[in-house]
Amino acid sequence: MIVDLTDEQARAALPLKWGAVEPGVVPAWVAEMDYALAPPVVAALTDAVRRGTAGYPPFGDGGVGATFAGFAQRHWGWSPPDDASVVVGDVIAGIRLVLEVLCPPGPVVVPLPCYPPFRDVVAIAGREMVAVELDPDATDAALDLAAIEDAFRAGARTLLLCNPHNPLGRVPRRAELEALAALARRYDARVVADEIHGPLVLPGLQRTNGPVFTPYLSVDERGILVTSPSKTFNTAGLHTAQVVVLDPAEQARLRGVPLPQNHAYSPLGMIAAVASWRDCDDWHAALVRRLDEQRALLADLLAAHLPEARMRPLEATYLAWLDLRAYGHDDPAAAGLEHGVRVAPGADYQPGLAGHARLNLATSPERLETIVGRLAKALTG
Amino acid sequence: MIVDLTDEQARAALPLKWGAVEPGVVPAWVAEMDYALAPPVVAALTDAVRRGTAGYPPFGDGGVGATFAGFAQRHWGWSPPDDASVVVGDVIAGIRLVLEVLCPPGPVVVPLPCYPPFRDVVAIAGREMVAVELDPDATDAALDLAAIEDAFRAGARTLLLCNPHNPLGRVPRRAELEALAALARRYDARVVADEIHGPLVLPGLQRTNGPVFTPYLSVDERGILVTSPSKTFNTAGLHTAQVVVLDPAEQARLRGVPLPQNHAYSPLGMIAAVASWRDCDDWHAALVRRLDEQRALLADLLAAHLPEARMRPLEATYLAWLDLRAYGHDDPAAAGLEHGVRVAPGADYQPGLAGHARLNLATSPERLETIVGRLAKALTG
Ligand SMILES: Cc1ncc(COP(=O)(O)O)c(C=O)c1O
Ligand SMILES: Cc1ncc(COP(=O)(O)O)c(C=O)c1O
Repeated sequence: MIVDLTDEQARAALPLKWGAVEPGVVPAWVAEMDYALAPPVVAALTDAVRRGTAGYPPFGDGGVGATFAGFAQRHWGWSPPDDASVVVGDVIAGIRLVLEVLCPPGPVVVPLPCYPPFRDVVAIAGREMVAVELDPDATDAALDLAAIEDAFRAGARTLLLCNPHNPLGRVPRRAELEALAALARRYDARVVADEIHGPLVLPGLQRTNGPVFTPYLSVDERGILVTSPSKTFNTAGLHTAQVVVLDPAEQARLRGVPLPQNHAYSPLGMIAAVASWRDCDDWHAALVRRLDEQRALLADLLAAHLPEARMRPLEATYLAWLDLRAYGHDDPAAAGLEHGVRVAPGADYQPGLAGHARLNLATSPERLETIVGRLAKALTG
Repeated sequence: MIVDLTDEQARAALPLKWGAVEPGVVPAWVAEMDYALAPPVVAALTDAVRRGTAGYPPFGDGGVGATFAGFAQRHWGWSPPDDASVVVGDVIAGIRLVLEVLCPPGPVVVPLPCYPPFRDVVAIAGREMVAVELDPDATDAALDLAAIEDAFRAGARTLLLCNPHNPLGRVPRRAELEALAALARRYDARVVADEIHGPLVLPGLQRTNGPVFTPYLSVDERGILVTSPSKTFNTAGLHTAQVVVLDPAEQARLRGVPLPQNHAYSPLGMIAAVASWRDCDDWHAALVRRLDEQRALLADLLAAHLPEARMRPLEATYLAWLDLRAYGHDDPAAAGLEHGVRVAPGADYQPGLAGHARLNLATSPERLETIVGRLAKALTG
């Protein structure tokens, strides 16, 4: 059910991922998957284009909120009210918007490593950033609640949470999120939870009661959720994401901003989002199975070709975080590029961090073999 | 060659314009046209969706700059270099970006009436606005260069120019733009020229040398052009516009902003933009002919049904600016809505201005008759 794209198909479907590498180089950098779109998404887009749907997006959310609530209920046993979603152009635009409109003044805590635009968006919103760095030798990559409390104590009033985490691939545990929520309450701080990778929790985690993914708003009703179907359903270029807050007065504030502050969503993206959240459970299940297989394959390939690589347990996402310091390259990604594979440099996620890389495994088994083979040649050859 | 949409087709293609009115109400408010898309645009979009092009947009401009330069050269005998365009999500996002990145500190001059987001974007960029109001009784609606100079003298350093003008429908004359450029030079100010309506100059204006539309950058090499094919080709929801500056160092500054500051353009929009600028001259010529006919029809209908209406000469755009004060309604649009037609209130464009409305004539002749008929009933019945 998951259809692998040929190189030529991938170049047409994914102009950034495949367009930014020379012919012959295998791209394993930006977070996009070399798989064909889910058939219900293609059908919805095809129909919309046939009907010439290219005008301004409608007032309201076009059903995005209700279909997301359905998805959340089916998958996580939790859901926000149908009318709690405010459509935005993309997740980062949503974070910018809530920093501008909802988050209290004061510095913003960003745990590192992080998705790089997290740092940029804090700066663009005119906020000071307080980084909480992960020690690459830490055995676990849990949230550093003590450091976060220090930052709140010193005046920070917002935290950007990535749940599940890119690039660490980790799923924060419910107890940990409850402790974070308690801290936020104590210091009157807001947690902005980017849950774009929420549907990409992989099999294997065990939990006694309920599913493994914990929607942050289920433990903190003052949390601010920003999400999008675009990562799970591979539609980053369609520009539809959503901000979810539970307080109707805050929903109204977000809906009331002047047009130039929230202008970037598209009717095609909204139509694709509705189809994604509503009609794609089978495709989504097949995707998770495929990513699970790719994860197993990656473990085998690393054991065979890069046995000194240390990989954080990949609990979610298709982005593996690799500690390659044992091979003595400051920038393993640069070395890889010279050998025909593009992975993402670790220092993009945690400035100054040497010897790490993020590897995108959402491709065919054959390409994944090539990716690891070339990286191994680059680092050991 | 211009295909009128049925009501049902229009509701699918234009979810804002048609979705924001009750069934039975004829929408003549937001700037979208009740016409089917140009066939080359449909073909390009259909092909892109067939190939699953939903990923992040590529680095670079995907050919948008070069095809725009071709269009500009063919139509206006002027063009920027092929590589001078920086793609942005939409015109207003482009204005926000250049206010944040290129425009000198200081207040921003906005001639009124204006496209309402002009005022919002100045506020969102954290700038003070200096409004230069048009007296509704002025015989001509030329730029008030004396008032602009006063504002520059008092410290303003940016002016938002709408060329051609929405909502006045006027095409600024070359001499007037040259005088503005001279002022900008004298005060070291920047003019941001929104030329989204540039291709919509209608027949009738006479000029001795060259075409009637003057691209502002052709008279001021420090001007900042923001444009998009989306208004001419009816694709506002696809999210692709462009900022054009002639100084390569400024182009580099715009290209170097962090991703969250310029993130909203889409690959489908870029593909549609290339098709629009490159392959649609015949459709564009047919469109201008149709709009010219609609303009003539509107003049006849007003003469017959609203003889006291005063309409600014419609030199460009499909948006007629109507002075309806003779009928004694503060808000003719509100009166119209009660009689089944939605036009845009004049006060949206010039706060406090009574008795005006903007009427969108880009529809079928039959609907235009209904629009004017209902408005007449509302104002005179
Ligand atoms: C954590 C996280 N947030 C946001 C994004 C991007 O979202 P958008 O393109 O909607 O801004 C990504 C993309 O990889 C991501 O990993
Ligand atoms: C003068 C002007 N600028 C900009 C726009 C909108 O452009 P965008 O949707 O690309 O921001 C319009 C829409 O009517 C307009 O009239």
